[in-house]
Amino acid sequence: MTTSVGPTLPSLPSRVAEPGEGIGLDELALATRNHGLPLEALRYDVTPPGLHYVLVHYDIPAIDPATWRLEIGGAVRRPRTLTLDDLRSRPAVSRRVTLECAGNGRAQLTPRPVSQPWLVEAVGTAEWTGTPLAPLLREAGVDPDAVDVVFTGADHGVERGVEQDYARGLSCADALRDEVLLAYEMNGAPLPPQHGFPVRLVVPGWYGMAHVKWLVGIDVLARPFEGYQNTVAYRLLDDRNADGEPVTRIRPRALIAPPGWPDFMSRARFARPGRHVIEGRAWSGRAPVTGVEVSSDGGRSWQTATVHDGDEHPWAWRRWSYEWDASPGQHELIARATDADGHAQPLEPDWNRQGMTNNVVQRVPVTVLAE
Amino acid sequence: MTTSVGPTLPSLPSRVAEPGEGIGLDELALATRNHGLPLEALRYDVTPPGLHYVLVHYDIPAIDPATWRLEIGGAVRRPRTLTLDDLRSRPAVSRRVTLECAGNGRAQLTPRPVSQPWLVEAVGTAEWTGTPLAPLLREAGVDPDAVDVVFTGADHGVERGVEQDYARGLSCADALRDEVLLAYEMNGAPLPPQHGFPVRLVVPGWYGMAHVKWLVGIDVLARPFEGYQNTVAYRLLDDRNADGEPVTRIRPRALIAPPGWPDFMSRARFARPGRHVIEGRAWSGRAPVTGVEVSSDGGRSWQTATVHDGDEHPWAWRRWSYEWDASPGQHELIARATDADGHAQPLEPDWNRQGMTNNVVQRVPVTVLAE
Repeated sequence: MTTSVGPTLPSLPSRVAEPGEGIGLDELALATRNHGLPLEALRYDVTPPGLHYVLVHYDIPAIDPATWRLEIGGAVRRPRTLTLDDLRSRPAVSRRVTLECAGNGRAQLTPRPVSQPWLVEAVGTAEWTGTPLAPLLREAGVDPDAVDVVFTGADHGVERGVEQDYARGLSCADALRDEVLLAYEMNGAPLPPQHGFPVRLVVPGWYGMAHVKWLVGIDVLARPFEGYQNTVAYRLLDDRNADGEPVTRIRPRALIAPPGWPDFMSRARFARPGRHVIEGRAWSGRAPVTGVEVSSDGGRSWQTATVHDGDEHPWAWRRWSYEWDASPGQHELIARATDADGHAQPLEPDWNRQGMTNNVVQRVPVTVLAE
Repeated sequence: MTTSVGPTLPSLPSRVAEPGEGIGLDELALATRNHGLPLEALRYDVTPPGLHYVLVHYDIPAIDPATWRLEIGGAVRRPRTLTLDDLRSRPAVSRRVTLECAGNGRAQLTPRPVSQPWLVEAVGTAEWTGTPLAPLLREAGVDPDAVDVVFTGADHGVERGVEQDYARGLSCADALRDEVLLAYEMNGAPLPPQHGFPVRLVVPGWYGMAHVKWLVGIDVLARPFEGYQNTVAYRLLDDRNADGEPVTRIRPRALIAPPGWPDFMSRARFARPGRHVIEGRAWSGRAPVTGVEVSSDGGRSWQTATVHDGDEHPWAWRRWSYEWDASPGQHELIARATDADGHAQPLEPDWNRQGMTNNVVQRVPVTVLAE
């Protein structure tokens, strides 16, 4: 389904902004369509639609659920076509999963890779209900020499000259993991259009690019998948590393729900002096979050925050809190998550040419008033 | 409830971007929080939450519906406090209403007023259910010398040095119009947090700033309201007009659901040659939309589009369509709405210092491929 239409399409190559170059109208057009989680919405365990981040590569397709079909084919013994009723009549599972865009943090990088310009907010947590993928693949009879499984969406567009239906491959081993779902509900209701109606893939622990929306095809390959989204787009490229490592699981991150109240234009924060409970969420797709440290002096000293519950939902963010005794003056809050694999957030960003997986710590300046 | 905290808060004055100045990180922080309607979502008569535009001046407040109260007071004979159950037990009305941000089109202006940087997408249409406001005001007994009614939300912040709860005034005559609602449902479900949960004002025909979200107070005044949002923020200012006219009802606008498919980064459109049904929506808050004209040659010639139905929902956008026989090459589509008062969209923007009510026609370049 992926075809190149060659150089006649004026699709620009990937680029990095010049020093001091402001956000362009192209980046703005993406920022007005796609949206992040307003940070005060970190208060919700489960993010309502409209507050959960959304990234749509092309257009949201119009799909009639009555005629929608999912084709399972390729290197399988029993190819098959499923309707939405077929999926809904299979065993259903609900999982609470935190999704984050691999490009989150991109617009904080210097120089700035030019693409969807996320700051820190491309995240959300939902209850996804659907049927596990692995039994479906087993019923289809995956060939013993199969390597990858390709998931294709109904969304169609051009990226850097390549006309394509959005498609992402997973290794067979990853596709067969128990937690992977074909989801048809978000927070107990049919998927909203922008989250993949009627069916999307959910791959707990992975960045958003793996959770293919508007899913229409599952193809098992006996060779590695070489589609654009795996071999070009979602790679950690730098000058020493032209092909780059693939983007896979979510790196640890903590976000702070900023205290006090904002200035409209600058989003600068103001708070009254005294005791504040600073709260936020922390997550990692690699291992459970084991700790969150907080600094209220810009990183000179660190205290341990309380990380709450969360064992019930191993793929979801965990709430954390910290009591801050705020004295008048300028302060900078920072939170830093660590996971059970020992990965911690860096204090300086890890730059790469496409602006992927930047999990640098968030810094929240707060002006505490005199009274 | 509005208090000035003086010049100690580093809140910048309104400004206009320098020539060639890109979008700043402050504008981007607003663009990643607030979001527009992805233009393909013009296909829906009623916009789902998450696709409907949202502008939040400060933070989305956390409100417990059990303890939420609405205070009606000021120049009335019978002040009163209502619970959510009180409102829900009153007569309920549903109205389909198109809301548009007064700042829509701001980032297309040159020079660009620095604020929420909308391009064309700050619009949406929902079914709002609630109870009419006028009977409540009549029961409260509005004083004969009352002038304005002030609606105050629970959202709190700073704008240009003024610490405030978001508050907007309407004249008594406008507040008493039949169509004004206290809405507690959007599209048949409780309001989402970002749309004003549990109760918002809906003032059909007016730009979004009048539809106060998270409503907690209704104050009747015997003098004109002089709050920030009426006297400073939502004004049509220019160099000759320091106080400016107030922003009130929505100017006519047509939007095109762009045909074909997009390039990811530029959002440039590509389409196959042949017959396309070009569709979109058109609205005006001043009078019914009476016509939409379409140009497919950048404005050299204009044809009449078909404007569909719509009498049932006088406050909502109307669908329009136009058959376009697309030949290979570069084209520019434009749509222009006219309303029954004879207002038509301008071909060049009407600049003002705060970037309000820019309803210049939308231009959609399309590359039609050879096959």
